Amino acid sequence: MDRLQHRRAAARLRVLCPDGTPLRERPVRIDQTSHSFLFGCGAVDAVAMMKTQDEGQRAFLRERMEKWLGLFNFGTLPFYWGRYEPREGETAYTETMAAARWLIGRGVRVKGHPLCWHTSCADWLMRFSDQEILKRQLERIRRDVSAFRGVVDMWDVINEVVIMPDFDRYDNAVTRICRKEGRIGLVKQVFAAAHETAPGALLLINDFNTSVSYEILLEGLLEAGVPIGAIGIQSHQQQGFWGLEKLENVLSRFSRFGLPIHFAENTLISGEIMPSYIVDLNDWQVDSWPSTPEGEERQAREMQEMYTALFSHPLVQAITNWNFNDGQWLKAPAGMLRQDNSPKPSYQALKDLIHGAWETHLDLRTDSEGYVSFEGFRGGYTLICGEDSAAFSLEEDLSDTVCPGRQ
Amino acid sequence: MDRLQHRRAAARLRVLCPDGTPLRERPVRIDQTSHSFLFGCGAVDAVAMMKTQDEGQRAFLRERMEKWLGLFNFGTLPFYWGRYEPREGETAYTETMAAARWLIGRGVRVKGHPLCWHTSCADWLMRFSDQEILKRQLERIRRDVSAFRGVVDMWDVINEVVIMPDFDRYDNAVTRICRKEGRIGLVKQVFAAAHETAPGALLLINDFNTSVSYEILLEGLLEAGVPIGAIGIQSHQQQGFWGLEKLENVLSRFSRFGLPIHFAENTLISGEIMPSYIVDLNDWQVDSWPSTPEGEERQAREMQEMYTALFSHPLVQAITNWNFNDGQWLKAPAGMLRQDNSPKPSYQALKDLIHGAWETHLDLRTDSEGYVSFEGFRGGYTLICGEDSAAFSLEEDLSDTVCPGRQ
Repeated sequence: MDRLQHRRAAARLRVLCPDGTPLRERPVRIDQTSHSFLFGCGAVDAVAMMKTQDEGQRAFLRERMEKWLGLFNFGTLPFYWGRYEPREGETAYTETMAAARWLIGRGVRVKGHPLCWHTSCADWLMRFSDQEILKRQLERIRRDVSAFRGVVDMWDVINEVVIMPDFDRYDNAVTRICRKEGRIGLVKQVFAAAHETAPGALLLINDFNTSVSYEILLEGLLEAGVPIGAIGIQSHQQQGFWGLEKLENVLSRFSRFGLPIHFAENTLISGEIMPSYIVDLNDWQVDSWPSTPEGEERQAREMQEMYTALFSHPLVQAITNWNFNDGQWLKAPAGMLRQDNSPKPSYQALKDLIHGAWETHLDLRTDSEGYVSFEGFRGGYTLICGEDSAAFSLEEDLSDTVCPGRQ
Repeated sequence: MDRLQHRRAAARLRVLCPDGTPLRERPVRIDQTSHSFLFGCGAVDAVAMMKTQDEGQRAFLRERMEKWLGLFNFGTLPFYWGRYEPREGETAYTETMAAARWLIGRGVRVKGHPLCWHTSCADWLMRFSDQEILKRQLERIRRDVSAFRGVVDMWDVINEVVIMPDFDRYDNAVTRICRKEGRIGLVKQVFAAAHETAPGALLLINDFNTSVSYEILLEGLLEAGVPIGAIGIQSHQQQGFWGLEKLENVLSRFSRFGLPIHFAENTLISGEIMPSYIVDLNDWQVDSWPSTPEGEERQAREMQEMYTALFSHPLVQAITNWNFNDGQWLKAPAGMLRQDNSPKPSYQALKDLIHGAWETHLDLRTDSEGYVSFEGFRGGYTLICGEDSAAFSLEEDLSDTVCPGRQ
């Protein structure tokens, strides 16, 4: 049984010469140029690259982002309220929009993360009443979704709702309003604000909690008519690879809703594993967290196992690695690049899948009527014959005519 | 601060002589005769008493139930589908109805438990399709709620929904339909069937899971408009007393819905504590589970602490002990009577609260206008002067005229 059949489509193309006659019995080259599946990664350095005034730093980040583009077609941009708008009214709009446009110009789809979250929330909100915080939360969503409409068409609307009203590590504006409105009450309102502002956008809820609590929350939200377009699942594995059994269990439990699933924040590390007694990952504060040669081999192997399992599941629509390079969140060796931008084995391992095993490149020959038939991974394609080429898209089974012209 | 103020009400009564003139400056006796609060217990032996054909056994159960009446005003009757209707169409209606009437005739309010549950479910259902099982589940609810209308006006409609679709110890009809319909989908339908059949009945959901999962489930159900009249919480403490901290935590988390709370299945034992590694209490199978003198003192003390904490919380409307005598579920020493019907210290401890500290009995004197004023625990009362008496009800603050007559 081919576990990747749902990732492929069949094409039967009739290739015509410029004069409209069939191109009979001639070699043609089929090259997949893009993926329908969303191979994603955090793209925080696209923003940093736009912001820095240091030439050397910009070149270094540019080199990093070029390597990023060597793997991914889907980027997560930061919209944490406390960082996006550190002082009321002073937003990071300019550099964030520049980063989004830079990515989009390179064929990357962009997601904004997150519009509502109790962590990294704006401190200046806390002087307001609960009612005023809620009003500003909804206004903030309308403002940012509107400002990025046509560029960012996918949003993590709300993050970590299961724990949100019970979060007690520090007081914050969003936990306050979640306690007041209830989980479902708040989720309804923030989704409504985003949906009204951009009816065509794909709206996600996202959580690290993969227990029955998140399942029950989703059931309640869908019952309440919340327009959830895809379910976001975090898989930060600083405490060790989940393994295929847990992965299949999570997939089976969250697939019952029939919605697309995004593994929206994936981490696998190439250093020492964080002890299991740590409950909140943020409690693990270390001076340095080195990447090791054995760790790098392990990370590459686990990445391949995990990507293969997820790509094999029909409802998974996206996998996003959280950190592209080592030394970001918790200083963890969680990247596909080291801090100096050198690629780790995991970079090559993912490349072997994304642009190797799971990408279609074929040398074919048209038949006597000019037809060529093949099956390929879903995405964008070019058909090349001699110096002529034609682009086509293979999203579903396809029967079409192509007429290659000079490039 | 008086933590029981919400359990009391103030009365100002004008006492009249038979000829309509005020009863001036005369002694009157105020006796509380019943409680508004529901002090409950499982009443399975009321059914057994109705069913047995053995005179000696009937007398023994009668003695037990008389002691039961010495404490409680609220009984839970068994409606487990697999026992209530062991063969299709052959129900325990007769003995169950007889037990309900016997209790009601003695001032006891009766609850049916449960109408839908994956455990103790009817095996004969399993030959049907899921669609047919659901149809029969809803029909069963309509049939039984209808048959007991006017007698049983309170139902545990559904039990243990958090685990219901994931329950995998054995195949059963209800888990099957819960998987198909979803938790909220099934709860909506079973509550609708009960509510349509008896619109005035108090309908409960009940669970042993007191985690955030149950909170989130309740939020989703209320959002979906399910007519939950009270939240049932199980507190089987075979593995040791929760303690006041956990109790307060549970009360605080489940009180945010503003609904009445029933501690619907309470167990505190007077023997050895079950080890904490046991996850499903039903896995603890022992030949005997003796009650010990130290255990009986501990149980009595814990009962008093727990009842005091719950009675002090304004939203708690009922506390039901699960087993009235030792040796029932899991053979545990969980009763207020030993197996030979002798009372344990917990019986006296509860009596000291229910019919002692929390019951109002006063010797007062009417003033020159015939008025008498007092504050008392909510419930039913008699006012006695000489050989005359009058009954009145003190549910809310009361200003009324009473006219005692010969008893």
